[in-house]
Amino acid sequence: MDIEQLDTPVPVIDLDRLEANIAGLQDYMDQHGIANRPHIKTHKVPEIARLQVETGAVGICCQKVSEAEVMVEAGLDDIFIPYNVIGQAKLERLIALAERARISVVADSDYTVRGYAQAAQRAGLEFAVRVEFDTGMHRCGVGTPEQAATLARLIAGSPGLRFEGLMTFPQNAASDDFVRETRRLLQSEGIAIGCVSYGGTPGMWEAHLRSEVTEYRAGTYVYGDRSILASGAMTPDQIAFTVITTVVSRPTDDRGILDGGSKTFSSDMSGMTGHGLILEYPEARFYAMSEEHGNVDFSECSRKPEIGERVTVIPNHCCPVSNLFDRVVAVRDGAVEVTWPVAARGTVT
Amino acid sequence: MDIEQLDTPVPVIDLDRLEANIAGLQDYMDQHGIANRPHIKTHKVPEIARLQVETGAVGICCQKVSEAEVMVEAGLDDIFIPYNVIGQAKLERLIALAERARISVVADSDYTVRGYAQAAQRAGLEFAVRVEFDTGMHRCGVGTPEQAATLARLIAGSPGLRFEGLMTFPQNAASDDFVRETRRLLQSEGIAIGCVSYGGTPGMWEAHLRSEVTEYRAGTYVYGDRSILASGAMTPDQIAFTVITTVVSRPTDDRGILDGGSKTFSSDMSGMTGHGLILEYPEARFYAMSEEHGNVDFSECSRKPEIGERVTVIPNHCCPVSNLFDRVVAVRDGAVEVTWPVAARGTVT
Repeated sequence: MDIEQLDTPVPVIDLDRLEANIAGLQDYMDQHGIANRPHIKTHKVPEIARLQVETGAVGICCQKVSEAEVMVEAGLDDIFIPYNVIGQAKLERLIALAERARISVVADSDYTVRGYAQAAQRAGLEFAVRVEFDTGMHRCGVGTPEQAATLARLIAGSPGLRFEGLMTFPQNAASDDFVRETRRLLQSEGIAIGCVSYGGTPGMWEAHLRSEVTEYRAGTYVYGDRSILASGAMTPDQIAFTVITTVVSRPTDDRGILDGGSKTFSSDMSGMTGHGLILEYPEARFYAMSEEHGNVDFSECSRKPEIGERVTVIPNHCCPVSNLFDRVVAVRDGAVEVTWPVAARGTVT
Repeated sequence: MDIEQLDTPVPVIDLDRLEANIAGLQDYMDQHGIANRPHIKTHKVPEIARLQVETGAVGICCQKVSEAEVMVEAGLDDIFIPYNVIGQAKLERLIALAERARISVVADSDYTVRGYAQAAQRAGLEFAVRVEFDTGMHRCGVGTPEQAATLARLIAGSPGLRFEGLMTFPQNAASDDFVRETRRLLQSEGIAIGCVSYGGTPGMWEAHLRSEVTEYRAGTYVYGDRSILASGAMTPDQIAFTVITTVVSRPTDDRGILDGGSKTFSSDMSGMTGHGLILEYPEARFYAMSEEHGNVDFSECSRKPEIGERVTVIPNHCCPVSNLFDRVVAVRDGAVEVTWPVAARGTVT
């Protein structure tokens, strides 16, 4: 099938670019001796995760237990979940995963560590646990090396748990200082920091500048989007994910309405102005959305689209967009090669 | 199963409130002789659509052909699609729908009308077509009564099409003036405006103040959300849709992190400040989200939550939230009564 025959709105993956993005980051990480552990939250597609591992990734990263369940079912066998897994129901599922694959998790509190320890002992398993620390995002994560060391000691001393190292998102120069100080605090006790995992696509090409990193997690790099273009980490010819839409209305000379709104593009601004870049009309201003309509101002465009014309949009943030679709269409040279279920979406727990 | 046993994040429907919301709007519309045609884009659940029709709705409204396909498959037989249906693929699907159910559509351009006419003639069917007009939203819709009348004439004169009336969203006092003027323009030609369809939950209780309305489309009223509370159209004890989340981290004394972010709540602000109202902590400020984390400032709360505590969130805008989940859980008196697939989500075309 030709790409022109796809009904809209439709998310399309350029396979040549996808493969080049996956190989490009792998090469860079290999060159610098950093383990590459891509985050699958961007695509949620087992076939892409397998491609990442076949290209050299040590394993994958999943943000949710439900994502890990889909990936283990698809044969992925080394998964890091950088999330405080809380509560009986999820811990039972974590045990079931750990019986089938190598699973590591994080903690930033005693509460989380105790839950892991109880679950591991109940199941007669060992969980690999990393400590999450915060060097600027102010989301999860302990705030000081002293807190990190205390938690590392608790993990190392808990039967059923193995202290695996440290993890943060995103990384910056302060991350290295944090790791060094935590190591210093633990050194005399023989508690080693085996793994230091940093992450984030915008900063991925600076990973080699961090002296402490041993593993890197990037997600968005497979597809790219408007905010990653703005960060400078990717170039327009690397964008592998677009949404094809149709102009369904031209109520005024300047205004055009696309058949994609917040249920297609999500409402994520990701620091951008407007809701996406229209490749055929780069001067157009995608200024508003409702759920199934996108409002575009074409006043700055020398040519303006007709009703029925198809236009290609680079979203602000690709991750929540792929999460809105049950399937993505992968194309090569303008022809559809395969349609992939976005298998790890919708099972939100 | 008790509601406390549900793993989080989980969207929960209070069935007593849902039924009361459905009955309440139906009573109001019946009382004022306005046909009630609820918009299913909010819930996308066939079982709820059937309840709406069983309670007295004349039919339903779907925003996409794909939604209508799911609803026709589920036995709903009278569907209005207030969307310019464009392109060969979608028109073929529209024909397939019209062979199984009463389908009406809108147009705001010659292009859309010609597409309907060709499809109807090809299939030997008749399509009921309404003209969409714009009285303030500046999305789709013709801008003047003269344009509406011209399009009505084109529809009325097209073999295979039947001019059914006018439609707008949202409605306001200017909508009636627009309808009256369009009627005046068409009167001498014997083209009757059979249906005048207005819509929107915030203005639903003012529908009887509009002298021209014959049909009303509301969607959000079944569930309610934070923005509808702010509009005054619903009260807190009518909110039938909440998301239960778990506090997974308490990195500082004031900050708490929920296991729901933009892939749970969407990034829709809907004019609100913050990302949702936490029922157990109404003074809390849900100030930021990433994809799977929600950042909450509890500094104004006298009591602060522990890690592992469950909190109930009213989202800003319920429609994109239910669209993110494959299933919703319907409860009565704290016990799970049924789990419904959100059957019409994900098939985005």
